[in-house]
Amino acid sequence: MRADFLIIGGHGDLALRKLYPALYYLQKFNHLTDDLRIIVVARQALSKQALIDKIRLRIDASEQGLDAAEWEKFVARLCYHVGDATDPVFLSALRDKSFNDSARELVIYLAIPPDIIFSICKALQQADIMRPNIRLVIEKPLGNNLESFNSINQVLLSICTPQQIYRIDHYLGKEAAQNLLALRFANTFLEPLWNAHHIDHVQINVLETVGIEGRWQFYEQTGALRDMVQSHLLQLLCLVAMEPPAKMFGESVYNAKLKVLMSLRKIDEHNLRQCVVRGQYTRGTVDGQAVPGYLEESDADQHSTTETFIAIKASLDNWRWGGVPFYLRTGKRMQKRYTEIVVQFQNVPHKVFAEDQANRLVIRLQPDESIRLYLMNKVPGIDTTTRLHPTALNLSLSEAFPGLHIPDAYERLLQDALRANNTLFTHSEELELSWKWVDDIIATWQSLDYKPIPYAAGGDGPAAGIALITDDNRVWY
Amino acid sequence: MRADFLIIGGHGDLALRKLYPALYYLQKFNHLTDDLRIIVVARQALSKQALIDKIRLRIDASEQGLDAAEWEKFVARLCYHVGDATDPVFLSALRDKSFNDSARELVIYLAIPPDIIFSICKALQQADIMRPNIRLVIEKPLGNNLESFNSINQVLLSICTPQQIYRIDHYLGKEAAQNLLALRFANTFLEPLWNAHHIDHVQINVLETVGIEGRWQFYEQTGALRDMVQSHLLQLLCLVAMEPPAKMFGESVYNAKLKVLMSLRKIDEHNLRQCVVRGQYTRGTVDGQAVPGYLEESDADQHSTTETFIAIKASLDNWRWGGVPFYLRTGKRMQKRYTEIVVQFQNVPHKVFAEDQANRLVIRLQPDESIRLYLMNKVPGIDTTTRLHPTALNLSLSEAFPGLHIPDAYERLLQDALRANNTLFTHSEELELSWKWVDDIIATWQSLDYKPIPYAAGGDGPAAGIALITDDNRVWY
Repeated sequence: MRADFLIIGGHGDLALRKLYPALYYLQKFNHLTDDLRIIVVARQALSKQALIDKIRLRIDASEQGLDAAEWEKFVARLCYHVGDATDPVFLSALRDKSFNDSARELVIYLAIPPDIIFSICKALQQADIMRPNIRLVIEKPLGNNLESFNSINQVLLSICTPQQIYRIDHYLGKEAAQNLLALRFANTFLEPLWNAHHIDHVQINVLETVGIEGRWQFYEQTGALRDMVQSHLLQLLCLVAMEPPAKMFGESVYNAKLKVLMSLRKIDEHNLRQCVVRGQYTRGTVDGQAVPGYLEESDADQHSTTETFIAIKASLDNWRWGGVPFYLRTGKRMQKRYTEIVVQFQNVPHKVFAEDQANRLVIRLQPDESIRLYLMNKVPGIDTTTRLHPTALNLSLSEAFPGLHIPDAYERLLQDALRANNTLFTHSEELELSWKWVDDIIATWQSLDYKPIPYAAGGDGPAAGIALITDDNRVWY
Repeated sequence: MRADFLIIGGHGDLALRKLYPALYYLQKFNHLTDDLRIIVVARQALSKQALIDKIRLRIDASEQGLDAAEWEKFVARLCYHVGDATDPVFLSALRDKSFNDSARELVIYLAIPPDIIFSICKALQQADIMRPNIRLVIEKPLGNNLESFNSINQVLLSICTPQQIYRIDHYLGKEAAQNLLALRFANTFLEPLWNAHHIDHVQINVLETVGIEGRWQFYEQTGALRDMVQSHLLQLLCLVAMEPPAKMFGESVYNAKLKVLMSLRKIDEHNLRQCVVRGQYTRGTVDGQAVPGYLEESDADQHSTTETFIAIKASLDNWRWGGVPFYLRTGKRMQKRYTEIVVQFQNVPHKVFAEDQANRLVIRLQPDESIRLYLMNKVPGIDTTTRLHPTALNLSLSEAFPGLHIPDAYERLLQDALRANNTLFTHSEELELSWKWVDDIIATWQSLDYKPIPYAAGGDGPAAGIALITDDNRVWY
């Protein structure tokens, strides 16, 4: 397959932090064909050398540092163009110059701010850029609610087919997420337990220590529910809760995820107060550093009721998960940064040993990736009462293959886009269902005037967020 | 609890190899009361110093070597008596001298050859030694068939109650065997899978490299079925197959084991040829050393049809295990020495990944002790086809507690006898059922003239022993 990679938004944060390093490592580990070009479009009138210098800094700071020979090869792939991607004339000229060979596949990555997606799509249409072997990669935010998501989707569908659209949720590209699927579906020992008969509850925590990082206006329109739950948390929930797909590929996987999203119990005025806790951080100390509250950030509107924290007790109304709560929690300015899925098994039905601790499986996606099974084990010894000890077994392979490069989620996903495998990308119907569920929650809290509770930066969020789970005699791990 | 320990057969192999070292380590790890005496009865007219020297050699060679202070304390516990334990006059005098304080408990260990058990019991009776706080520990062979076992049992019951009899099967005292019970019954993740719905088969291998070690006459009357299957293999089978007991103690455990033994399908003329393979070793090479065949050992009778190898496909006719074969195999002069229980899970019902290997749990009791779960795991990387890799997870704690003393089975069992806990000892009804099952097999092969197949020492036993499992599309691990 001969293909090129086109980045629109070449000086942007996403491109610099994620795309160039991912492409560099793809090259380094021989995943890129030799003739693949990285075509870069930048709006800012900066020199190619300026871009190269910026990328070099990133590669220097990356996992394995910069290898001179690889770097030379990488730079040779770069084709740099300054111009306005919302201008069809520019795009036409670019095509004629850079990707007029219709036999070559092309992956276009729109690494752009959300507000110009419409004009870029319009320009792509007017310049008649899209041909069947071009794929378009886009990333959230994809709208701010179901309606705006549908608008974006319609624009995309006006220039290409659904199969050409690759919506990234990079959590799906993480090794631990992939391995969760392998553990579930390549082994016999987990799946028979993976249901309401044996699992007490599931919790998904995506906690950040950062605040809104200078993007107050954007965040104010978004909030934690739209920003994190609608995308990452619901996608992780799908991986945990989905039925075994017939194939680990495209439609089979997406259908299995759809079933999960269709089973999500609606949250409305009858259950909102029992199921949802909103929070908004106030000033505090994070990692030893004093930080301002959300309402004290620059550009802040004092009357904002946007949540920077949300905890939800979600339910899946289906046979497998009936009665098993899924506790979702995400927040900014929390005490620690981590992303973890905890699958908590039930207690043994009868204690024959004095000590007792229910098993759990913990899938950690950030800051490091691992999967651990917590079980009870006998301590060697001959005490009168058998001494047991909780042991954490590492089910992931990072320790088994020391020195092996653990690919970043973007390496996986860019490579998948290049080889036209959309399994790990999100389908429009999934996002429609996610937005619908989220929109209902937002409509409910608006109608009930259900405001966020202040919580001090650097802590565990509002007390009500803890109570959401402790009231059920459970704890956040 | 004030107690003493009496060893009859103080110069014997069992006492030297197992009992003194176990008592030494019990002392070292503070499990013995300071005033506990080790009373030794020896038939050979050797000096106490001669015994002390022999023990010293054993402790020197043991796991942690000899600690001078501990050794001094240990030697101070030894009370040495030369005499004939089948002589009631000697026993009376010994009691009056050594354990006439009826407030002190006493554990008597009969570390003696099987042929004098009757006369010792008779002497114990005539000397009226047994009082309620004396416990009698005995070890196999306990008879050679159901009838002779019952005779021994009757003699024992003529001098004490069933609760005073501690029949050792030291496999039950091993850490890995204990931990198997902890893993099964202190965790939720194994027990729901522990049945015919999820387990394909179980195999129990007790393979030895040694031959009959100069005991041809004894072995000739015994053979692998009586020597190993009737005791160790059936006991291990009980631990694997038993229902969760109500309590991890005495009668609860023994009842659970009884149920297993009651479920053992009888082997008779209808199924013997499909279920049993006998073997007898011929000359060969073990560990690089030429060794003679069973019929070439000194004292050998050329016409012997005693088996030194046996493989059995056993079935448990109960709800939990219906249709799950239990493959038992034990042999002398095999290629490698190990004792392992393998619990082989079924294949996944549907392959969603290209690679595939059913899970299995391997409980290793010899030469080292461990429990490993073999599962399939994703290899980090972004290959088009997800690469999986079988991984062996160590479920036992030996690595978690480096440096921790792993007690020998005898430490555990002697300590249990001292504290009157009979959970890990075998009950007469268990042995009756074991002997009944074994007797039926022997009667059948006698009536069918079903002879052992020769196999070369140092190999894998007779080809038919392999075919027993490969004919079912399975393999020995």
